[in-house]
Amino acid sequence: MFLKKIRSEGLAQLSYIIGDGGKAAVIDPRRDCGIYRDIADREGMQITHIFETHRNEDFVIGSCELADLTGAAIYHGEELPFEYGRTAREDDVYEFGNIVLRVVKTPGHTDESISLVLIDREFSDQPLAVFTGDALFIGDVGRTDFFPDRSKEVAGFLYDSIFEKLLPLGDHVLLYPAHGAGSVCGSGMASREFSSIGYERQFNPALQVKDRSDFIQRKTSEKHYYPPYFKQMEKYNLAGPPHMGALRRPVPSAAGEFASDMDRGLLSLDTRSPEAYSGAFIPGSLAIPLDMIPVYAGWFIPYDRDIGLIIHEFTDVEPAVRYLTRLGYENIISYLDEGLHGWEVSGRHYDRIPAVYAGDLKSRMDGNQEFTLLDVRKAEEVSAGRLPGSTHIYLGEVPERLDEIPRDKPIITFCGSGRRAIIAASILKQNGFEDVQNCLGSMAACQAVGCSIRSD
Amino acid sequence: MFLKKIRSEGLAQLSYIIGDGGKAAVIDPRRDCGIYRDIADREGMQITHIFETHRNEDFVIGSCELADLTGAAIYHGEELPFEYGRTAREDDVYEFGNIVLRVVKTPGHTDESISLVLIDREFSDQPLAVFTGDALFIGDVGRTDFFPDRSKEVAGFLYDSIFEKLLPLGDHVLLYPAHGAGSVCGSGMASREFSSIGYERQFNPALQVKDRSDFIQRKTSEKHYYPPYFKQMEKYNLAGPPHMGALRRPVPSAAGEFASDMDRGLLSLDTRSPEAYSGAFIPGSLAIPLDMIPVYAGWFIPYDRDIGLIIHEFTDVEPAVRYLTRLGYENIISYLDEGLHGWEVSGRHYDRIPAVYAGDLKSRMDGNQEFTLLDVRKAEEVSAGRLPGSTHIYLGEVPERLDEIPRDKPIITFCGSGRRAIIAASILKQNGFEDVQNCLGSMAACQAVGCSIRSD
Amino acid sequence: MFLKKIRSEGLAQLSYIIGDGGKAAVIDPRRDCGIYRDIADREGMQITHIFETHRNEDFVIGSCELADLTGAAIYHGEELPFEYGRTAREDDVYEFGNIVLRVVKTPGHTDESISLVLIDREFSDQPLAVFTGDALFIGDVGRTDFFPDRSKEVAGFLYDSIFEKLLPLGDHVLLYPAHGAGSVCGSGMASREFSSIGYERQFNPALQVKDRSDFIQRKTSEKHYYPPYFKQMEKYNLAGPPHMGALRRPVPSAAGEFASDMDRGLLSLDTRSPEAYSGAFIPGSLAIPLDMIPVYAGWFIPYDRDIGLIIHEFTDVEPAVRYLTRLGYENIISYLDEGLHGWEVSGRHYDRIPAVYAGDLKSRMDGNQEFTLLDVRKAEEVSAGRLPGSTHIYLGEVPERLDEIPRDKPIITFCGSGRRAIIAASILKQNGFEDVQNCLGSMAACQAVGCSIRSD
Amino acid sequence: MFLKKIRSEGLAQLSYIIGDGGKAAVIDPRRDCGIYRDIADREGMQITHIFETHRNEDFVIGSCELADLTGAAIYHGEELPFEYGRTAREDDVYEFGNIVLRVVKTPGHTDESISLVLIDREFSDQPLAVFTGDALFIGDVGRTDFFPDRSKEVAGFLYDSIFEKLLPLGDHVLLYPAHGAGSVCGSGMASREFSSIGYERQFNPALQVKDRSDFIQRKTSEKHYYPPYFKQMEKYNLAGPPHMGALRRPVPSAAGEFASDMDRGLLSLDTRSPEAYSGAFIPGSLAIPLDMIPVYAGWFIPYDRDIGLIIHEFTDVEPAVRYLTRLGYENIISYLDEGLHGWEVSGRHYDRIPAVYAGDLKSRMDGNQEFTLLDVRKAEEVSAGRLPGSTHIYLGEVPERLDEIPRDKPIITFCGSGRRAIIAASILKQNGFEDVQNCLGSMAACQAVGCSIRSD
Repeated sequence: MFLKKIRSEGLAQLSYIIGDGGKAAVIDPRRDCGIYRDIADREGMQITHIFETHRNEDFVIGSCELADLTGAAIYHGEELPFEYGRTAREDDVYEFGNIVLRVVKTPGHTDESISLVLIDREFSDQPLAVFTGDALFIGDVGRTDFFPDRSKEVAGFLYDSIFEKLLPLGDHVLLYPAHGAGSVCGSGMASREFSSIGYERQFNPALQVKDRSDFIQRKTSEKHYYPPYFKQMEKYNLAGPPHMGALRRPVPSAAGEFASDMDRGLLSLDTRSPEAYSGAFIPGSLAIPLDMIPVYAGWFIPYDRDIGLIIHEFTDVEPAVRYLTRLGYENIISYLDEGLHGWEVSGRHYDRIPAVYAGDLKSRMDGNQEFTLLDVRKAEEVSAGRLPGSTHIYLGEVPERLDEIPRDKPIITFCGSGRRAIIAASILKQNGFEDVQNCLGSMAACQAVGCSIRSD
Repeated sequence: MFLKKIRSEGLAQLSYIIGDGGKAAVIDPRRDCGIYRDIADREGMQITHIFETHRNEDFVIGSCELADLTGAAIYHGEELPFEYGRTAREDDVYEFGNIVLRVVKTPGHTDESISLVLIDREFSDQPLAVFTGDALFIGDVGRTDFFPDRSKEVAGFLYDSIFEKLLPLGDHVLLYPAHGAGSVCGSGMASREFSSIGYERQFNPALQVKDRSDFIQRKTSEKHYYPPYFKQMEKYNLAGPPHMGALRRPVPSAAGEFASDMDRGLLSLDTRSPEAYSGAFIPGSLAIPLDMIPVYAGWFIPYDRDIGLIIHEFTDVEPAVRYLTRLGYENIISYLDEGLHGWEVSGRHYDRIPAVYAGDLKSRMDGNQEFTLLDVRKAEEVSAGRLPGSTHIYLGEVPERLDEIPRDKPIITFCGSGRRAIIAASILKQNGFEDVQNCLGSMAACQAVGCSIRSD
Repeated sequence: MFLKKIRSEGLAQLSYIIGDGGKAAVIDPRRDCGIYRDIADREGMQITHIFETHRNEDFVIGSCELADLTGAAIYHGEELPFEYGRTAREDDVYEFGNIVLRVVKTPGHTDESISLVLIDREFSDQPLAVFTGDALFIGDVGRTDFFPDRSKEVAGFLYDSIFEKLLPLGDHVLLYPAHGAGSVCGSGMASREFSSIGYERQFNPALQVKDRSDFIQRKTSEKHYYPPYFKQMEKYNLAGPPHMGALRRPVPSAAGEFASDMDRGLLSLDTRSPEAYSGAFIPGSLAIPLDMIPVYAGWFIPYDRDIGLIIHEFTDVEPAVRYLTRLGYENIISYLDEGLHGWEVSGRHYDRIPAVYAGDLKSRMDGNQEFTLLDVRKAEEVSAGRLPGSTHIYLGEVPERLDEIPRDKPIITFCGSGRRAIIAASILKQNGFEDVQNCLGSMAACQAVGCSIRSD
Repeated sequence: MFLKKIRSEGLAQLSYIIGDGGKAAVIDPRRDCGIYRDIADREGMQITHIFETHRNEDFVIGSCELADLTGAAIYHGEELPFEYGRTAREDDVYEFGNIVLRVVKTPGHTDESISLVLIDREFSDQPLAVFTGDALFIGDVGRTDFFPDRSKEVAGFLYDSIFEKLLPLGDHVLLYPAHGAGSVCGSGMASREFSSIGYERQFNPALQVKDRSDFIQRKTSEKHYYPPYFKQMEKYNLAGPPHMGALRRPVPSAAGEFASDMDRGLLSLDTRSPEAYSGAFIPGSLAIPLDMIPVYAGWFIPYDRDIGLIIHEFTDVEPAVRYLTRLGYENIISYLDEGLHGWEVSGRHYDRIPAVYAGDLKSRMDGNQEFTLLDVRKAEEVSAGRLPGSTHIYLGEVPERLDEIPRDKPIITFCGSGRRAIIAASILKQNGFEDVQNCLGSMAACQAVGCSIRSD
């Protein structure tokens, strides 16, 4: 029996390929799906089945393209009108050599969510492991905020799925969820990516509830953000997204050409580090450090604009394109040749965002200097501890709440460590704010230097 | 928390690197130990601890070289006079960020065997997983035949280790053993490499015993083979083996040069497929197909002879050297340039071993033709089913039992599928047997074509 | 200035990517054309031009697919009605940073052949190098046998192209041809892949002629073979071949399934070594050792049959598919799972082709044993030296001249080293010849063991 | 015949491996010499000879380690008392299959310099190519400034070597020098890495001289910089440098630990981009952007201090170590974990160097603002064009000429593009200069924005 977890960095999405006897199934394939075929080839297996545990909303699924490449059949739950694939129903079983996969409906996160119970017939017909999709994570459970008018109902569904169907599989059963730490699909997940039903039953904080009502109460009081790109992902994943196939890759673009393209509407996406962006950036560009693209690009980049990349070095082009493509962006046409250096030597204007050391921030606050400290963290982080006098607007909401920010005094952007804050700073600059600074280190550094901190 | 299993193909040996907070431990590193450092580097971790669950006997351990490369400290059990490293005692704990590793003594396979219990302090101080070395495998338990005069005692130790110490850790605890299917350290292991204590408790055949006596009874009645190289491995692993460091790699050797070297005592090791060896081979060469080296080379190759390789193509040199080096061979000086083709065009003599199709074998047996059918499988396989009239000598014992094989009639070598049989055939040819044939397909094919089969 | 030669193994085809100032040209791209894009990406260049020095006949060109991937324009000579691309005319120039490429018409091999003169404007406007396609090779010149009724005319064209246009570029000019040693496009090419116009002028044997007539005389007296697939390649390369795009890869096929597919018409292509094929092969399969596919598959495999591969190990699938795809085969649907071993253990029948050592062959000939020695080398090789009494049929012509071979006595196939002979042996076996043996080592070994050899 | 050029990035050093008939020679191997063995292995060749065209002064040679790994013999010229290897004398020949390498003494750059003439006996006994070391480059000739008191003599030697020995080999002879564009061993080299004797004879600017005196006159009037590390390299390369063998790699070091180590004398080397350094840097750290290490590290880093790296991301550790090791640094003990981000969140102080846009610089100059514009380019660049009022100190000389720079007004560092200037800026900051800014874009940008420029 062969089992391999494939982790999509940034998304923190976990997909699986499992096989035996020359046949294999893939569970929740990501859009850049060549990797599953490569693994199957190497292991001498033919991919015959693809399972989607649910319609994912945080990335574009690769099922359709993988099915075309391999001839495999796609299966998903029955409660959504998918325009492709077949329906997997409760207790349906699929066999691969000694492997049996059995369908268990586990709604709550979404209505059509399924889990797949794995049985190794060579040893027993009892469950060995379970693929739980977004129902049960390691250290957390799935979000239940997607149906605001049915919030208690779906939280109850999730309770039933976990407590009535998954936990009863047995303490010994291994757990394979669809996401790990860093995903937008949950905030309490463990950094560790292995666990068992029994370990979660005892130690997963989200499962330490008094009863069903307590669980529902907790779930419905959670505060989640719902980024705009989820809608696009849902549309794609219901209809079957376009193939990545032989997409044209972005080509190098000299500074002059890049500048002209920006004048004509090119969205200039700067993927360099916060420090590099602070040091020098092209006016009008949006800062999203490379590894933050999977989580934040979908908040700020519309689907109808051409994208030009500003990168630290050429090897960053490939992951940037990969991350963006997983979110459904397909119009990445160019990257700035020689990066910012190419722009600098062309004599074109660049700007900078002074970095504010936490110690200096403390002095300025102690000295009652006049400035806006714009904290862009999540509400729950702000509740847990904030600098007095700070203004809170969640990063994803900055573009639509710009008029809440005064333009007549300096702004210092602020978050947990200074990384989200650089995105906010770039958006302010795009929108004409002049005196924008960024606190590299932010809350972590403020704690270290002894700033006074308030919590709710 | 980072955990990665490193599988050494052929040996079916499983080692692990686990880390958190920038520090990492390696458990049972293999001799070609660069991989651990590469992984640690990539993950931004420093390897500070190396654990040996026991003195391994089936491969050369990489602890000492890895320690030199990284500055890490080595730990092992206390019952053997290791000439390097430190002693890990019951309940000793080692911490890496949120990880705790706790030592549990689990003798039986060897006296100094230890297991390491893994705890994730971020969630609980209860066990999450356990590294069991050669005490408890997935689908099997460790061998207890290394101390023939204490056989019941050590089998009892193993029972106690498993039933009193490992199983009580809890059904939910994940299991990480030191070997998987294909290892010489057990024959019943699952092809699957993931399990939990609870799954094994219920479904591991070796654990389905009535009581301690039943367990001891079963273990002491097992028949294991003890290859001669185990002694060399034990010596190496007690003293700390020489570093692989910058070993000279084998160089290409033209046919003439290779022939001269063979005249001067070079051991010519043919790693090609059984079919290719059957088609044409150099007289005097020993056949061990590439992927069988880890298991069989130690039976037939003395440590004091230079080795020359005959390979299918250049890319086979690297794994051949790797496999041999893991077994302690360091004198692989050359490979035949252009492989057998180079030999053929030089006009040098080659021989062949006709392949006998199972259908033809059946006809010959039905026709009462005179020949020796030499079955080289393990005793337990022969007991389970053999062709009538066959002669049984286990492959590893062929060299010392040659005089039991008649030289005056044809010999057909035979095993489960024809692969071990080609090794036997080459040994017979080396020793002057003239009419040697090999049944490619062997028992598997004989069953398919309907040969009559006897079992005990 | 960036220049890289890309060698396609097997075809011995040389393509080039050359660029400067962020733009690049590719000359004669092969069908699996991703490599050019990868290189261009890494070097920060955009591929804007693709040149075909002529309509290639020995492989499928990748121009159209590469153009689609990059947006580049394709250019070729004007004397053929290409269904894609643009026309490059004498003295047309193309500029890339400091690079100038200038077109020189160099007909002879084909009418529309062009060469491209490279100039480095940073240093001089004089030629630095020249891409000569199939006009001038290192150590040889192009074939002129494609227009039998115009043979003298086109040989004369080639003379003019070389002596009037290429050599006058200057001794110092570097030479970049479209093929190297091993290509079917010439037999005298140097193994070395670097030279200059001056070195070739002085030392290329094909250029050491008295005059134009002498050159024409020599060229028209050459004997070349014209394999049937050339027609398919010419058709493809004139019209623009289908994209490789996201072709389905072959999947593993268990022995039973593979056997059924063979019954239904699957062409079973055995790519293992001659020795392995000799040792055991599936009746009905065609032997073409992996690295001989580029040169010989086109002689024997029709374009309308599904192909199933028999491979030594999984990693051979990829090159086998690559080689076949370059020749226009796109119907490689499966490979035999676990290779011949899988077939053997299934109990299915296999056959073998005994290898005949040259020393034994000599004995048999000296002893006047009755057999057919079938020599499948090229006419020119046979003229240079043959064993007395041998029958000559060129390998490519064996299928259509089977009735010239007696079926009532043993056949020993024979070539230069035994590799082409195994292909011939497999074809004889496919066609019902029973007693077929193969001389591994063949002529090379016969010379070494002192067989008597005759030449014309 | 096999020939491959290996380019060492940064050093722009070119080494070669050439072989035939299973034997190979390596010319001027770099210190990280595994690559030659890997290539030889892949090509089925044994490295038997290593040639050093001269005692290199700009990097540590890998000859001794490669010799140990392969058993090859080392050869070099006879005029220096090398402590290893053998002597190659005029007209000595070495044969590898059809290859002949013939020694030609070509002093001038150094006294013991040799060139190696390549002959392909399969075609001719006349020269095909020549490996010229540092005698003749593509577009330039070797430096002759290493013996100041013999400057005319050695320039004359170089003239004789080139005009009497290399050019007479023939226009058709291919040229393989030891350096390409970007090397400290010459400033006029072509970006192109292929040429012929004939092309250089006609178009190499350094060869377009009236006569021997003219050549000597030109060479002796060149201004070269002689960095301090050359002495160390010469010592190493004369005695045979220590093996890289199994050097310990740097380990991650948390911010606190890194800070302590800096307090104890660790040299903190920041290899990030100029923009990132501008944005935020650790006080006391030396900025050398990663790809500038090969050329500039040797000027500023003493051999007796431990080095800690500050890197953009983990993958930069390997090239940083490689570059430093090639220059003889072996004490790179750590890298800052999580890079500058790790430092920022620890609450430790960081500083920044404001970037000055060329347009702003122009305004400041036009407005007669008071500041020092410190131009750190080479004298020849400054002569060709400088901003009025600038102060010139060559980058390599900044540390020893600090007292020429006023401390009482702002300093703007300046070079060709802003990259060397960031190194200078970091050195000023290390030495207590407070108001340091850097002109990203520097002269290139100033030209683009229309600053007034003066030349000598």
